[in-house]
Parts: sequence; structure tokens; C-alpha cells
Amino acid sequence: MAAFQPSVRTNRDSSFVSRSPFSLGLLFACTMHIMPLTVQKFGGTSVANAEKIHRAARRAIRAHKAGHRVVIVVSAMGDTTDQLLALAHEVSSNPPKRELDVLLTTGEQVSIALMAMAINDAGCEAISLTAGQLGLVTDSVHTRARIRRIERQRLERELAAGKIVIIAGFQGIDDSGEITTLGRGASDTTAAALAAVLQADVCEIYTDVDGVYTADPRLVPDARKIDRISYDEMLELASAGAGVMHGRAIEFAMRFNVPMQVRSALTDAPGTMIVAPTEGMEAVAVRGVSLREDLAVVRLTGVPNVPGLAATVFAALAEKNIIVDDIIQNLYQNAESAILGFVVSSEDAAIARELADRLARDHEMGAVEFSEKVSKVSAVGVGMRSHSGVAATMFQALAREDINILAISTSEIVIGCVVPRQDGPRALAAVHAAFGLGDAVNENAASI
Amino acid sequence: MAAFQPSVRTNRDSSFVSRSPFSLGLLFACTMHIMPLTVQKFGGTSVANAEKIHRAARRAIRAHKAGHRVVIVVSAMGDTTDQLLALAHEVSSNPPKRELDVLLTTGEQVSIALMAMAINDAGCEAISLTAGQLGLVTDSVHTRARIRRIERQRLERELAAGKIVIIAGFQGIDDSGEITTLGRGASDTTAAALAAVLQADVCEIYTDVDGVYTADPRLVPDARKIDRISYDEMLELASAGAGVMHGRAIEFAMRFNVPMQVRSALTDAPGTMIVAPTEGMEAVAVRGVSLREDLAVVRLTGVPNVPGLAATVFAALAEKNIIVDDIIQNLYQNAESAILGFVVSSEDAAIARELADRLARDHEMGAVEFSEKVSKVSAVGVGMRSHSGVAATMFQALAREDINILAISTSEIVIGCVVPRQDGPRALAAVHAAFGLGDAVNENAASI
Repeated sequence: MAAFQPSVRTNRDSSFVSRSPFSLGLLFACTMHIMPLTVQKFGGTSVANAEKIHRAARRAIRAHKAGHRVVIVVSAMGDTTDQLLALAHEVSSNPPKRELDVLLTTGEQVSIALMAMAINDAGCEAISLTAGQLGLVTDSVHTRARIRRIERQRLERELAAGKIVIIAGFQGIDDSGEITTLGRGASDTTAAALAAVLQADVCEIYTDVDGVYTADPRLVPDARKIDRISYDEMLELASAGAGVMHGRAIEFAMRFNVPMQVRSALTDAPGTMIVAPTEGMEAVAVRGVSLREDLAVVRLTGVPNVPGLAATVFAALAEKNIIVDDIIQNLYQNAESAILGFVVSSEDAAIARELADRLARDHEMGAVEFSEKVSKVSAVGVGMRSHSGVAATMFQALAREDINILAISTSEIVIGCVVPRQDGPRALAAVHAAFGLGDAVNENAASI
Repeated sequence: MAAFQPSVRTNRDSSFVSRSPFSLGLLFACTMHIMPLTVQKFGGTSVANAEKIHRAARRAIRAHKAGHRVVIVVSAMGDTTDQLLALAHEVSSNPPKRELDVLLTTGEQVSIALMAMAINDAGCEAISLTAGQLGLVTDSVHTRARIRRIERQRLERELAAGKIVIIAGFQGIDDSGEITTLGRGASDTTAAALAAVLQADVCEIYTDVDGVYTADPRLVPDARKIDRISYDEMLELASAGAGVMHGRAIEFAMRFNVPMQVRSALTDAPGTMIVAPTEGMEAVAVRGVSLREDLAVVRLTGVPNVPGLAATVFAALAEKNIIVDDIIQNLYQNAESAILGFVVSSEDAAIARELADRLARDHEMGAVEFSEKVSKVSAVGVGMRSHSGVAATMFQALAREDINILAISTSEIVIGCVVPRQDGPRALAAVHAAFGLGDAVNENAASI
């Protein structure tokens, strides 16, 4: 019973603790609950070399010394993953996905070990954990597994011992101990899932930009950093081409209401908070615009007006694992036939076209039209729900620039226009300007 | 019960099998026993690039197609381990051993995945297993763990499914799932341990030389390849400086009587068999000679003849983790004092000297003598037990070359002479010649 004596107790909240033999356990539970918990995720560019690893280590140590429990998630160093993929394709034309996962997960394992060394070297205790050691359990779909559960036992034991815990991003294990990965860029997802499970106070995503911008600053020089953005706006921007964060990470954060912060690994600027939408956010119609440049359009013309034919087309595409970004228009030319168009990634374009040609032959359709090089400009904002004229503003902006709109898609908080690839950057800048996003003094564009 | 129907049975030995519901299980056990099992280990140079990995893959497939069950053990590619160590020392002056193991084991994990891809690419089924997935359990001594047990279940399941199984060398896990390593060069040990557990018919060690030589051919051009060598001779040659194989691998093979074969990864030459000693082996006095060039000698002079003082000296060395290669001589100068010399590796020389100086002061000894640059020439052979005059032949050979012997150590099958560093290669060649090892027509040197 000696371990439960009051003499072992240390600091705050002791007044809440009874003198029963279980007092220390209770105190402990209280203390754990009171200490804030921060998840910090460092991407590949933020751990690309020893100096950057030390910089990230110092940031984690600072949070730890400020009284936070700190969990770090790291990606593979620099372009390690690409180098490993290149090796795989050197030895095999079609590497088995199971073995790809065994291969690629080594990148993050290197990073966690080095990060733990760097933190220990700076005099602070740290321990690295692979997905297997942590117990981050996924389904068994190699190269794009989904997280099923995260064990908390080991994690909480190490945190309770005062250590900074470093977790390998991107990786998991399935129930039979097979190594899995969550898809490219999914270290964000690991971080968000951990933050959700641990009910973290914040999940900080450190990267080589200092936040989420109203548009890609490389394409739109007067783009501004966004201070606060809602989960669903961020989700739509990400899927519309803004490469800042992995979509599934945002879904996790949204589902479990974890505040996320996208920040620069190089500065102390506050970055962008990604949070649940507040009423005030709707004051702005459009939060940001983005450009997705890797798209192609396939159009089936003269599609017979037969029930179930559209289902046949998209079932055939799904069978080839082709992800359809948008089904654009279904314009009837006459009573008997239709035009059925869809947008796919350039990567899938050749297979999609082949498939469309076959479907057109088999089902006696007209010609297949194919626009290999298109881009999509999207405007995203929860304020669209309550603002009218947003679509008109966007179309007018493109018309003024004499840019042809090949297709339009809309959802509750997104308007997307497919345009010729070469017009993409100009279209982005025009739409950005039309909504006054670059104008810091414009009330409409002020951050919430 | 369908799976147990005779219809599922395939080939030989069915006559031994009853028609009970358990027949397939029995048949299976029989079949497994009859198919020979080969463990093939490929070192870092043999998997250094895609081409070499494919070459190794073809060798494994050939054995598999010849009806063998095949287990492959691979090391990290080329100089990966050194590169990872360099990274560790970039981020930390004193990396924690636990994290070093997390880091270094990635090297072998890359190799197993690539090897599995290469074999699958060639149309043969293969699966990679990390130490954790296999269940290669060690103690918890990071960076130099010892194997405690190897689970056979997963391994045998994959082999029974007709797959080539690829195991990561060098690595293990302890009972609590921590990642361990077995020490540099220990992929040989992984291979030998697997061969022992699986009662393999042979354990083939593929490397960049085509076998074990009577001396290092770079130093002694007329050195010959040895066809057969006994475990204990190989063990002594390895510890006396022949870098061909990891000592603990040989110990494993010896203890479990696994025949090992050291072979070239580039040719089909038969290499060197390492086996239990046969009577015929003693016909040759000396099987091979080797040179260890990284040694230093420390001599304490005027050591008072006090009981327990030698123990004090070596306890002090052990406390600093200094491995003493040889305690050479204990020559009394007079009734009251002695000379106490010992050989250590060059790496430990500075600390050993410092320690000797302190001991000399504390215990009122005479001067400490220090020979920083020495080497040891060793002659090894089980035949020494039954041949006389071996030591004399060796000393005469060195005397003829006018090489000063600084110290002598002997064991049942080894004679070692410490000589000045610059005389080492000449001493090696002289001893090699004195025992007729380079002379293919000399009866004494003929292989057994």
C-alpha cells in the first residue's frame, strides 16, 4: 500500500483527492485529464534532414515543457517514399500491394527513430512506436487501408511516464499482423485519428506552407492566408485540388470535432484553424478557390434513352477502379438519346476512353468525345447557402476572360467549372478576384 | 469434412495414409518431411541493386522448382546500414540503442519486400516476413540481442502453401514487441537459427567471394578455396579475422548440426561446406591462416605478485566493456613482480591504455608499455591435435622472415602470433607457405 500514501502525491488538485487507498489513482486520472494534449504532425519536407528533424524536435519539446502531453506523427523523410516506389518498379512491373506496404512503411519507421533520437539528444524523454507497437489496426486493403481502431493502452502508458510519443504516420496493421498503409499523404489521417481517440485539444499539421490560402499562391500572387475555415470547406477545397491536407484526415477531425491547425514548420505564425462552422462564417460567400489540373473529360453521345444504361456505364468504370470525379451533364438532344459526360483523373483517362469506346460499340451509342487536357476551377464556401448570385459571379468572371466552360458541377458549398487546361491558372485568378479574396481591405473577404 | 476427402490428396506416399478423416493432415506431415528444405542467405552485396536481387531471386526459384522448400534470409542492400548509422549520428551524439534498432531494422525490411516482388515478378509465389511477423523472439538487449525462440507456425503455413518465404535477417522482437537487432553481420545467425529450427538440409550463405580460403586471397595470392572445413575451425578462423561469416551463425550450425555452405552469389561453383569434423579432417594439420589487423597490446610491467591483482585489472577492463582478445604472457622478472600483457582491439586501445596507467599508479606497478599497431597471425586446424611440431614450423617461418613475435597465444586448434602491424601481411604469407597451403599438389594441403 506504500505507493498509495499521500506523500507520493505531488501537485495540483490534491484537495479533490480522498485519503482512500485509491487516492493516487484518482489524482492521476485527474492530472491526466487536466494536462492538455497536443498532436503534432510533421510532413516529409519538415523532417527532410537532420537540421529539420532537430527543429521539429525543439517545437515538440517546447510544447512538452509548457505542460502539454505531446504525441508526434511523422511522415517519411523528403522524397523517400518516391525513391522506394522507384526501387519497387525497378524489380517488378506489378509489385504485389502487400509487399509495397512492407516496403513503404520503412520510410516512416526511419523518421520515428531519428525523431526519438533527436528529442532524447536534447535532453527530453521520447519513444517511437510503429503502427504495430501502437496497435493502429486497419482493415486488410493493402495500399489504401482504413483505420478500424487505435489501442490507447501503450500510448497512455508512455504519456503518463512523461515521454513524448512518436508515431509512424501512414501505416497500420490488420488483425492478423499484416502491414498496411493508408494511402499517399495519409500521415495527416493518422494524426487526426490519434487526436480523435485521445480527445486532443488540438491537432497541429506542420508543413512547408504557413496555412491554407484563398488560392494557391504560386498561381495567384495576391492570395491571402485564411485564419479560420470550416471542416467541410477544407474538405471540399482538398478534394478540389488544394494539396494542403489529406481529405480523410479532415473527415476524422470533423466527425470527432478535433480542432486542426495547419502551420509552418519554419515559423511561429499561427497558421489556419480548421474548426466546426460557426454562424459568422456564412458572412463570406466564398472562402477559397482551387484548381485541379489532372483531369480529363469523356463524353458519350447518342446514348439511347434506355433505363439502366447509365448504371451499366458507371458499373463498368467502377469495376476498373476508375474514380469518377464528376458526372457532369445529361443533356437530351432529342427524346431518344442523351449526352453522358464524366470527369476522371488524367491517370485513368486512357482506360476510361477505351472503356467508353467499347460501351459505345456494345450499346449502339454515337461518337465518344474526349477532352484529354482539362482543369477544374472550384469556389468553396459555406456562405453560398445563404448568398445568392455566387454562380453568376463566377460564370461572369470566366466570360470576361473569354474562357469556355466545358462543364459545370455544383454542390451545397461548391461550384466547379471545367475549363481547357491552358486556361486554368487564368480562370483561377479571375474567380479569386471576382470574389474579392485577394483584397485584404474588402469586407467580404475579411477573415471570420 | 470436405477438405479431408481423399480427392484432395495429390501425390506420393498416399499408400501410407489411412482413409480416416485425418488422412490429409497425415499425408501433409509426410509430404512436408520428404521435400528437402533449403535456407538461402543473401548478404548486402548480393542484394545491392535490382539486378542482383533478380539474380538472387532466380537462384531461389531454381531450388524451388527442383522440389525444395525454400526460405530466404536477406541483409540490408549494399551499405544501407552504414548510411542509416550515419543519419543516426547526425541527429544524436549518443542515439538510444532502442531507437537504433527501430532505425536499422528498416534496411532488411526494404530488402525482403523487394525480394518478394522480384520472385513474384518471375512468376513464383513468395511472401516476406519481418521478425515480428515470423515470431523471431530475442532477449531485450538492444543492438546485440540473442535469439530465444523462433515460431514455426506462420513459416510452415506459408511453406505448405508452396510459397518461397523471405525473412528479414539481423532483426528480432522481444516478448513485449520491442524491435531488437542481433549485432552487425548477424543475418548469418538468422539464417543458421532458421535452418536449425526447420531442420534444414542445408544453409547456403551467398556472398561476394566463392568460399572460405586458406588465407585472404587479397593478401596471399596463391591462397586456395577450402572444400570442407569443420565448424570449430571456421569459428576460430572467423574470430581470428576471416570476415566470411558471423561467429554466432557457426555456433548455431554446430550446435544443431546444420551443414552450411559458403558460396558465390555470382557463380554456380560449389563453395565451401562447413560441417561436423570427420576423422579424415585431422590428416591436415592446418586448414587455414588468418590475419587480424586491428589490435593493440598493453603491457603492465613490475606488477606486484599480489593475489587478486590480475582479477582487479581484468575486472576494470570488463567494466569499461573492453573485450580482451588475448591475455598473452605472465612472465616473472623476479620473485616479486610480473609482466602482464593483454591484446585489445584498436578501437578500445586508448581507453585500455588510460585504464592501465591508472591501475599502474594505484597499485604501484612499473611503466606501462603500449604497442598501438600490432596484428595477429593465426593458424587454425583440427589436425593440430594429432600433429606435432606445428608451433615450431610457424615460429621458424616467422624467424626466417626476420619477423619479431611480440606475443604468442594457443588453444587446442589455434596458434596465434602477435607481430608488428607492418609485418602482418608478410607473416601471413610466410605461415601460409610453411604449411604448404597454397600448393595444390602438396598432399598435406589437399582438401579432405
